[in-house]
Amino acid sequence: MKSFIEAPSAPEIARLLAMAREIKKNPEAFQHAGRGKSLVLLFFNPSLRTRLSTEKAGLNLGMQVMSMNADQGWKLEFSDGAVMDGDKAEHVREAAAVISQYASVIGIRSFPSLSDREADYREEVLEAFARHATVPVLSLESATRHPLQSLADLLTITEYQPRLRPRVVLSWAPHPRALPQAVPNSFVEWMRRADVDLVVTHPEGYELAPGFVGDTPVVYNQREAFEGADFIYAKNWSAYREYGAILSRDPAWTITTEKMAWTNAAKLLHCLPVRRNIVVADGVLDGPDSLVIPQAGNRTWAAQAVLHDLLQP
Amino acid sequence: MKSFIEAPSAPEIARLLAMAREIKKNPEAFQHAGRGKSLVLLFFNPSLRTRLSTEKAGLNLGMQVMSMNADQGWKLEFSDGAVMDGDKAEHVREAAAVISQYASVIGIRSFPSLSDREADYREEVLEAFARHATVPVLSLESATRHPLQSLADLLTITEYQPRLRPRVVLSWAPHPRALPQAVPNSFVEWMRRADVDLVVTHPEGYELAPGFVGDTPVVYNQREAFEGADFIYAKNWSAYREYGAILSRDPAWTITTEKMAWTNAAKLLHCLPVRRNIVVADGVLDGPDSLVIPQAGNRTWAAQAVLHDLLQP
Amino acid sequence: MKSFIEAPSAPEIARLLAMAREIKKNPEAFQHAGRGKSLVLLFFNPSLRTRLSTEKAGLNLGMQVMSMNADQGWKLEFSDGAVMDGDKAEHVREAAAVISQYASVIGIRSFPSLSDREADYREEVLEAFARHATVPVLSLESATRHPLQSLADLLTITEYQPRLRPRVVLSWAPHPRALPQAVPNSFVEWMRRADVDLVVTHPEGYELAPGFVGDTPVVYNQREAFEGADFIYAKNWSAYREYGAILSRDPAWTITTEKMAWTNAAKLLHCLPVRRNIVVADGVLDGPDSLVIPQAGNRTWAAQAVLHDLLQP
Repeated sequence: MKSFIEAPSAPEIARLLAMAREIKKNPEAFQHAGRGKSLVLLFFNPSLRTRLSTEKAGLNLGMQVMSMNADQGWKLEFSDGAVMDGDKAEHVREAAAVISQYASVIGIRSFPSLSDREADYREEVLEAFARHATVPVLSLESATRHPLQSLADLLTITEYQPRLRPRVVLSWAPHPRALPQAVPNSFVEWMRRADVDLVVTHPEGYELAPGFVGDTPVVYNQREAFEGADFIYAKNWSAYREYGAILSRDPAWTITTEKMAWTNAAKLLHCLPVRRNIVVADGVLDGPDSLVIPQAGNRTWAAQAVLHDLLQP
Repeated sequence: MKSFIEAPSAPEIARLLAMAREIKKNPEAFQHAGRGKSLVLLFFNPSLRTRLSTEKAGLNLGMQVMSMNADQGWKLEFSDGAVMDGDKAEHVREAAAVISQYASVIGIRSFPSLSDREADYREEVLEAFARHATVPVLSLESATRHPLQSLADLLTITEYQPRLRPRVVLSWAPHPRALPQAVPNSFVEWMRRADVDLVVTHPEGYELAPGFVGDTPVVYNQREAFEGADFIYAKNWSAYREYGAILSRDPAWTITTEKMAWTNAAKLLHCLPVRRNIVVADGVLDGPDSLVIPQAGNRTWAAQAVLHDLLQP
Repeated sequence: MKSFIEAPSAPEIARLLAMAREIKKNPEAFQHAGRGKSLVLLFFNPSLRTRLSTEKAGLNLGMQVMSMNADQGWKLEFSDGAVMDGDKAEHVREAAAVISQYASVIGIRSFPSLSDREADYREEVLEAFARHATVPVLSLESATRHPLQSLADLLTITEYQPRLRPRVVLSWAPHPRALPQAVPNSFVEWMRRADVDLVVTHPEGYELAPGFVGDTPVVYNQREAFEGADFIYAKNWSAYREYGAILSRDPAWTITTEKMAWTNAAKLLHCLPVRRNIVVADGVLDGPDSLVIPQAGNRTWAAQAVLHDLLQP
């Protein structure tokens, strides 16, 4: 049994990409794969795009789809050996094993605390489900990764890339609230396995976790990073080192049409939702180089390719 | 791309009615129309009848149906040019365009504030979705209209009318809370396009918006209005002029068996839920002339006829 | 029209068991039964296992499945003749009749108050729905019974029983919170109609309602009860006589490996969720004699057999 929690190997990514493209051309061509199979989606945190696109992906495959909001009331125990006399009514051991009785694949969304870095990066919720489930587990965004987003991102890049090895720039941008590092972590994790020239740019202090960023070039000067870029991936995240902190709200980092002019006619990517005129200016989002809507549309084909893969015996 | 937000023209209403009747006879006869299509229902306010009947209508048509409660947590920005540094995480421009990537039709329920008349009657939420969506938008009851209800109302009237041009009386009735004008507005809007003799009766001060009521006869004497009626449509609404106000809770306006005796053996209609013995007395609701249950049942066929229409290329 | 609210007769139980076994072997063999039929599930209280297994059962039968959380906001009036000027917006008369317009079967979950015994044991919510619905009503656990659980329990016992008439022991166990009597009530009600040798063990004061327990042997000494047992059904419940009270949290009643050794190599059953190391010790739940996961899996086949039955004309 395999799960889909982090970035697969480069050849597996290539295979998923090819499958996503084929599915996009003919979304209902693989209904035999899901017939009689069930997809249970558990949301410990709210979701719009991930929920709709993954539900649709499951239905396109002919699966039974059952979604549950687990964000209130259902408190799970994760510690082995716990004496459960508190407010937690169920242990993840039972929860994961039981849902496996009703599901062929279990999708789980679980955000980080942003207060306890070690706990967040241990991926307690997702890893516990993966350990105790007897069917594949699919990350719908976990504390530190969002791989379905990254596959959709990569699919979008391959559809619009103007040259063989495009220059892809992940740019931090300001935001009023402290956001997880899941999307940038996964984006970097996937891009490093893809045939792109990746650069990350952010203010000092916003360095991503070393295990994700590896030897990716990091440039603190946004203008320098943007020069020659074919894609700008805009995204806010909170600090990793000073964990969960907002170190800057500097509007000088907002993605504007002026800054897009520094690039090689770059296309804009963002995972959405996006704070307009804080993260990205209206002019860019409403202009011809924004790909954010087709990028969101690609979430369906990414999810469907991964589900198809998880359903293979 | 068309949407279903207000009353269509009289010939279009006639066509929808004919389709609803055909579908009612054979609910699953049009599954080819919805095969491979998706219906996403967004509820900014709670719903029972509308939700179940519209979900069922979509499933009867062979559609994928995905419902989302958007009543908590998901705060949308509607103002163009907004600098989104507050509590609103997503702009309706992205929300509507993104959901259009996953939906063939988007259904939206959004109630009025009842505090800002101009804003309510601008239909900010529904109109913004219709403007920014790239697929048809279906009103599941908006600030000022409830067209799916009105089509079901009209279908019910045509099924039970005792003569060619029946006398239909919309009667205000008391209620402990301030309710929207959406149902009476739409009812009047539709009946004026139908072959019925419409009269509205309510206490002074409860006049509906002029744009809806037009030259419909308004009678402040409930008994006078009821005389010769073939259908009594009971409904509370709050004031339009003194916007959202409760001007009366006078039990003399409750619909009772005594009052039904003034009519031409009239049938009772109400959109439900109904406060028993406040809006309508038990004796009427439990008597042989109440149509409220078959009227609610007709919601399915109304929704299915409209969905079928919206799915046509 | 029949409903599924309490234990059926012994021959009907035998028929349901046989059907559940057949369905388990071939879950999608009976799709003709549910084609064009709808299942509406109403949850006045949260649910995991019951929701997923019943949704899956409906989908396996080819039904349309629509689930609604009715736990907030939707306040129903149950009293006949009520003047509805308070906070209850809808009477169960309309609610049940309207949902019947959209559903072929209505499933309802409604927990007890645990404060008003008479009201709880009258089963106000479920009985009112059954009375006013025009389609069969399916209990998804009511104030005093959980028959879908009991059918799954019995199916599990018949799959694992080591001899023709196994000794089945229902054992009370401690719990930090006051729990309903629904599961033990139904378990006893069903086992008394099955070919098993049933014993109940609990501390004094925890006697179940006489109407359920009847002449079932009750043993206050847990060890004595466990001797020779083939199945231990662990479950906490609050007191019936001193209604809703927690009379004991004595850890001496926790089900441990030491106590399982007193039995005839008994298998452990529990309806889940289970408080580990309070109700049952880790060693038992993680050991080879725990059946709690396959027992939860059997919920699907139990629900599907009952739904299939309710769909018969």
